[in-house]
Amino acid sequence: MKKPHVRSRLARSFVRRLVRRLHGYVPGEQPKISGLIKLNTNESPYPPSPRVLKAVKAAVNGRLRLYPDPTAQPLREKLAKFHKCNAENIIVGNGSDELLALATRAFVDPATDGAHRVASGRPAGKLSKSTIQYFAPSYSLYPILASIHGARANPVALRKDFALPSVADLRLGKVWNFHAALTYITTPNAPSGRGYPTTELETVCRAQNGIIILDEAYVDFAAENALELALKYPHVIVSRTFSKAYSLCFQRVGYFVAHPELIAALDKIRDSYNVNGLGQIAAEATLEDLDYYRKIFRRIIDSRTRLIGQLEQLGFEVHPSQTNFIFVRPPGSAAQVWLQMLRKKRILVRWFNHPGIRDYLRITVGSEIQTKALCSAIESIAVSVGRH
Amino acid sequence: MKKPHVRSRLARSFVRRLVRRLHGYVPGEQPKISGLIKLNTNESPYPPSPRVLKAVKAAVNGRLRLYPDPTAQPLREKLAKFHKCNAENIIVGNGSDELLALATRAFVDPATDGAHRVASGRPAGKLSKSTIQYFAPSYSLYPILASIHGARANPVALRKDFALPSVADLRLGKVWNFHAALTYITTPNAPSGRGYPTTELETVCRAQNGIIILDEAYVDFAAENALELALKYPHVIVSRTFSKAYSLCFQRVGYFVAHPELIAALDKIRDSYNVNGLGQIAAEATLEDLDYYRKIFRRIIDSRTRLIGQLEQLGFEVHPSQTNFIFVRPPGSAAQVWLQMLRKKRILVRWFNHPGIRDYLRITVGSEIQTKALCSAIESIAVSVGRH
Repeated sequence: MKKPHVRSRLARSFVRRLVRRLHGYVPGEQPKISGLIKLNTNESPYPPSPRVLKAVKAAVNGRLRLYPDPTAQPLREKLAKFHKCNAENIIVGNGSDELLALATRAFVDPATDGAHRVASGRPAGKLSKSTIQYFAPSYSLYPILASIHGARANPVALRKDFALPSVADLRLGKVWNFHAALTYITTPNAPSGRGYPTTELETVCRAQNGIIILDEAYVDFAAENALELALKYPHVIVSRTFSKAYSLCFQRVGYFVAHPELIAALDKIRDSYNVNGLGQIAAEATLEDLDYYRKIFRRIIDSRTRLIGQLEQLGFEVHPSQTNFIFVRPPGSAAQVWLQMLRKKRILVRWFNHPGIRDYLRITVGSEIQTKALCSAIESIAVSVGRH
Repeated sequence: MKKPHVRSRLARSFVRRLVRRLHGYVPGEQPKISGLIKLNTNESPYPPSPRVLKAVKAAVNGRLRLYPDPTAQPLREKLAKFHKCNAENIIVGNGSDELLALATRAFVDPATDGAHRVASGRPAGKLSKSTIQYFAPSYSLYPILASIHGARANPVALRKDFALPSVADLRLGKVWNFHAALTYITTPNAPSGRGYPTTELETVCRAQNGIIILDEAYVDFAAENALELALKYPHVIVSRTFSKAYSLCFQRVGYFVAHPELIAALDKIRDSYNVNGLGQIAAEATLEDLDYYRKIFRRIIDSRTRLIGQLEQLGFEVHPSQTNFIFVRPPGSAAQVWLQMLRKKRILVRWFNHPGIRDYLRITVGSEIQTKALCSAIESIAVSVGRH
């Protein structure tokens, strides 16, 4: 048998060059440390509704031996009713992440010149069919999806306050590609938390000649949503998830709303049983108990308001948020130092080692008790920072 | 607003040409008809073990709000112990289907000449980096995966009795591509049910210069397995699933065993939270209660033996099976007619409208009661067929 390092080199040689060069997505930490206050991946601090838990528990029986509904038909029908559209407007995914990745394969041709690197900020011109575009900063998965697919990534800077540039500014800037095959817009934005008015989003959609995905993962904490645009324009997709606002991260259920032709294309290339059965049941039960969740949204929005007020008093620069997290620039020390100091106090928040946002922390809005603990931890750190 | 057909045409124009031309995979029917005997998708007739159901039920609580373990680390460690390897040899997927698809993107370059069609039976020569190869008949998903990825499919006929051709015959036949980037072998085979000796598989693996996936979805019903080959050769992957033998189709958990370099490549390009949390818990609990399942395997193998005997008496040609299904050529009428007649008697079996296997039915081995009902239904159909 060959020596281990020879075997490794040989194994590596079977991997596509594109994949060998990739750096995978780094998800937020999911540590198993007891007593930790976990404010790093925007999960809801509240459990699913008792009716949802009951429905899932009741389904844990011999049926687990059977395949789940391959098209999640009952769930799609309930979602269609909820959004006043047809089941043909909806595809359900193994979390919206699966669908965001699927969209690259449905709508974007891989680049064929071997230039698999992120070609930042270059107008793609004739190469638009291989261009994936997004604002920066936004969901750090988008550039990864582009590089996995061998597509050209075209990140375009948001305004300094994380607002959307106007279409006129996008034209002037000459970086935005109005013919990009696929454009992702996180709305409300992550990690900034900023919400975008539907009228502004519609202006961008109308000016765009490729698919636009409005990723509304956090929309339940916002003043408005843009779902109508997916039903109005044949090139606009709205992405939603049960993970965050509906406390079902564990179960992996997200969905797209779009024109039936786009849904049919995604449907052809997905795995046949992509959504686990208990996840489908949990999501269906969620839609039957929306009042429970609406109360939670109000509670989290109230906590957010109080948290912003307190952090501002402690010298933090806080961006306006329409999400279940806030994006803050801490005073005194570097954000990375705050990250460590909070971790020492068993509070986990998120710091991105990316250009332009290294000075910030993203903090999930927790429960009332977690928020209190966070504030007093920050207060005591602020005192010790002030002392040095 | 534009007219509906104009909007549809416009929407379609955003879909990649490759995807517009695709025909998606058609999974076996999952009907919701009460009293139906479902022998069409090779599910186990027996429920998961009581300890598995208990573990899953106990996990249905507030934790659903949290993300699952992104790398399924505890499950991978248990699997590593079970297979006497390291966690680095294992990747867990949303069913093995997810991993089979992921392999195309990790190991196969899309063809760049626009020839996205299945180029049946053509030696790919220099184009091997874009070639996906498999024996025919086997899992009908493979050609679909090739076409979704824009790769060249190279189906190579099994022997008439569905045995593996020898390497010498493969060389003589000049159709087999010894440099194909990716080769799938279903072992034991579906839909034929035939098992392949590990020594034969090893000979093929040793002759092959690209990745080979040994898809062992049905291996628990076979005389031997080839897992050792994945730990011996840096280009061999063994695929397993909890779906069928372990009664967890609903939960979507499958895995690959392979060299850590191959696992790392797949890991980079998968969705970050690809395996739902309750699925991970169910699979972990399954590994703690293997005796329960071993008893079931023996029971199914016994039913298979009896079923084969009875069907042969009724004039069926039955292929030897090392799986939880049998592949049979019914007497008298065409297989498609038998499919319909059995359906009228509320028994669902599988018929493939594919060249070379149109005369066959694939029948899942059910419980003792289901097998009895199947046999008496077939008996009464045989009588009526004989009469006409």
